[in-house]
Formats: sequence, structure tokens, C-alpha cells
Amino acid sequence: MPPTFALPHRGWLFDLDGTVYRGQSLVPGADAAIAALRAAGRRVAFLSNKPIQTRDEYARKLTRLGIPTPVDDVINSSLVLARHLARLDRGAPVFVIGEPPLIGELRDHGFEVRTDHRVRWVVIAFDRTFDYAKLNTALQAVRQGARLIATNPDRTCPTESGEIPDCAGMTAAVEAVTGHTVEVVVGKPSPIILEVALAHLGMTASQCAIVGDRLETDIVMGKRLGLATVLVLTGITPAGDPRIAEIAPDLILSSLRDLVR
Amino acid sequence: MPPTFALPHRGWLFDLDGTVYRGQSLVPGADAAIAALRAAGRRVAFLSNKPIQTRDEYARKLTRLGIPTPVDDVINSSLVLARHLARLDRGAPVFVIGEPPLIGELRDHGFEVRTDHRVRWVVIAFDRTFDYAKLNTALQAVRQGARLIATNPDRTCPTESGEIPDCAGMTAAVEAVTGHTVEVVVGKPSPIILEVALAHLGMTASQCAIVGDRLETDIVMGKRLGLATVLVLTGITPAGDPRIAEIAPDLILSSLRDLVR
Repeated sequence: MPPTFALPHRGWLFDLDGTVYRGQSLVPGADAAIAALRAAGRRVAFLSNKPIQTRDEYARKLTRLGIPTPVDDVINSSLVLARHLARLDRGAPVFVIGEPPLIGELRDHGFEVRTDHRVRWVVIAFDRTFDYAKLNTALQAVRQGARLIATNPDRTCPTESGEIPDCAGMTAAVEAVTGHTVEVVVGKPSPIILEVALAHLGMTASQCAIVGDRLETDIVMGKRLGLATVLVLTGITPAGDPRIAEIAPDLILSSLRDLVR
Repeated sequence: MPPTFALPHRGWLFDLDGTVYRGQSLVPGADAAIAALRAAGRRVAFLSNKPIQTRDEYARKLTRLGIPTPVDDVINSSLVLARHLARLDRGAPVFVIGEPPLIGELRDHGFEVRTDHRVRWVVIAFDRTFDYAKLNTALQAVRQGARLIATNPDRTCPTESGEIPDCAGMTAAVEAVTGHTVEVVVGKPSPIILEVALAHLGMTASQCAIVGDRLETDIVMGKRLGLATVLVLTGITPAGDPRIAEIAPDLILSSLRDLVR
């Protein structure tokens, strides 16, 4: 008997940590569920807000965990920022508060990545090498007219050893000293990352479902753009969260495994 | 003929940069005005929001510029923070986002300055050595219950070569990643720095005048506590600033020189 799926959609977008895996461990059955979707001709892509790893690292991790994935099917906030900024100001000189994977993505998209303040954009990201000198360069750049764009709005990032500061820390510091607000944040829950993902799948929003563990990013964003939304309870949102009724995902699953019957 | 003064007050509090000097240059006549006040038996002290220099460095700078000043007559945000925190939680373990002058002041006041997150307070200041590791230590400390206190609210600090990021950048980063708001900011326009200064002079607010170049700190704070307020136009506030009429300092002088007639 062929498998049946909880929803009929042709395109499937998956959040990663808390949805497909937790840290270094696959969510049990996630591999079989995704394999069944693919075998039935559905298209699958993976979304991440984290700009501190390359898309290739995500593809290799998924493959190692039993979900063979080409790099093109991984869409993270670094890629989305580079693509979005290429539409706004192709090839512009940029100063980056960010790590090498983001800098590499920007260079690959033709941007001139500079280490001084003579730039048209300051790109702000989750940056474990953030320091006062970068904050000062951002200030000087903005005082000369540079604009602000950021990868993701997350306050902290969960790791095996606890939460660590994420992009919101760098963004707040730059906004506070410059007195300017970041114009665009491309990562979840921005529609920009979803638009890039839909374009990658070549589908419209109504043809797609998004699966994630965070109500305020994955589910809110999906509903806003008209995708079907699937909340899984393997991540940050507990079953008893009162916001579930309020935000009302189309489907609630205890695990990705239950996508396939 | 003995000099006459623009106001009869016995205690005089002076802002420094923009009021007494600009960068490395004395405001012409500031030395004579302060000498005349002292000669007439008035008491004088100097206030600074900057925690990155020691009080001794300020005293020596004033002395070098022709205003002989003992270290006790300099009241900066590092001293005020240490005194205020000593009232709240004497000898507590603290983690400091700040530079050696602040750390020295805290040690002198009996605090246990630690480099890990096992503390009761995170002290946030203007810190040119701020980095991601400090931001992370602050986050871990707050997650374990530490409270937040800051030296000064300034967005940027003017230098000879332009404005550089000040304490607001560090504060905003910590607030953004922790989700907690700083409980106390002791520097101008907080009443705390004025209370420390009045206690140092041994006078009440109505016996004192405050002289400064910033409406939103020196003047607003002085009016709020009932000191006479004197705006000088040698610093950041231009003569035509529409807020002058609104905030209404008791006296407006083109320069400190005009305090004495």
C-alpha cells in the first residue's frame, strides 16, 4: 500500500533544528518521512536562519543523518541576504558584521566586501567575532550614509551547551549607536526567505506547506504568505503552549514521523 | 573691585567636555572663572559620564589646563556606579563590560570582579574592548539571575577624530540578547550622579548650580533636582536650538568666562 500524507501539497519546506534534527541527532522517522515525500514526487527544501554555517555544511549534515540533500535545497539567511541585496544594489561595497560563511556567500554574489567604512551597506549577522572595532566601523559607515540590513532577528541561538547570543545582539548595538533602524531583516519570519524558497521550488505559496517547531517564526510566516502550516512538537514549542490555539497552525504533529501514514 | 558672579550659589558643579574644555583645549577664561569662584569661597566639583578614564587622569588634565584640581573633586560615572552599587549590594561578585579604570574603581570599593558568569551583577559601561565573549558571559550571568546596572546612557562619545560608540551600544546588545532591561543607569541625566556630587559638596540642591553644554543631560537633570541651571554655548547646543526655550535653563552664557563680571 503506498503511503498517504497528512497534507496533499506538492512543495514542502522544512525548518531544521527542532524539526528535522535536534543538535546532532535525527528526529526519529524524519528520514523516512522525507524519503516518502520525495518518492511520491513532492519537492523538498530546508530553511535555516543561521548564517554561521555554509549551505554545504547543512547539506552534508543532513546527508550524514540519512537525508541525502544537494546543497541547492538548503536555503539559509546568508544566501537569502545575498540574493535580496543583489536585487537592491548589485555589486555594492559592503561591510560585514558576520562570519566567513556569510562573507563567502556575499563574495559569490559579486559584492565588494570591505573592512573599512567606505561602503553603501552594513550587513549585520550572528557573529561570534563581533567586537567594538566592528561596531565603530558600522557607526562610521552609517554616518557616511551606509544603509543597514540583517540576516535574522533571533535573540539567542540554542546550542548543545545552552543558548548563546544571536544576531539581535549585534543589531541592537548598531541601532543604538547609530540611531538608525535596520531596514530589512531577511530571515524568518520575514517573507523574503519564503519568497526565495518558493522561487527555488518553482511553486506558489498555495502549493506548499511549511513545517517547523516555532510558532512565532515558521508558523506565523507561513500563514501570512498563504502556505499550509505544520507545527511539530519536537522542538521549542511544548504541546500545552497557549499560543497554539491563537496562532492556529493547520496541522499539529507530535513529530515529523507522523507526516506519513 | 571684587568680582561679581552671575548667580549667588555656594556650590558649583561643572560638566567637563564642551563646558570647561573642548578636547585638549581650555575654553578661554574658564580657568579665571573657576579661580574667582574658589577665591570667593565657593565650592567646585566636576562631573563626567565617561568611565574610560580614571578620576586622577581628569584631575591631572584640569590641573595641566590651569585649573588645579584634587582627585576628590572629580566625580565620574565609574565612581558613582561603585558607590551606588555598594549601597545596593556591598562586596557582590560582578562581571564588568568595561575598561580598567572602572574595574579599578569597583575593586577599590570592595567588589569581587570576576571574569565568569557566576556573579550577582553585570556592570555595563563604555568599553572599547567589548566583544562577543563578554556579551555571552553577560547572557549566561543573567540566565542565572544576575541583575544589570550601567554607567551612562550615551549613544556616542565625541573624540578629536569624530564620534565613537559609547555605553548605549553595549547596553542595547545585552538587553537584546537577555530580554532584560538595565535596572539603573547612574550617569547623567540620572539623579544618582547629582546626589553623589551634592553629598561630596555637603550641600543641598538649592544651594548649588550646575553648568553644562547639554540640555538633555546637564540642564534637565539639574532642573529636575532643583539646582540652578546654567547652559553654556561652547559645546553641543547651538544658540538657536529651539529646545532652549522649552527646557528653559535659569541662565544662558555664551561661555564659562561670562560667569564672572
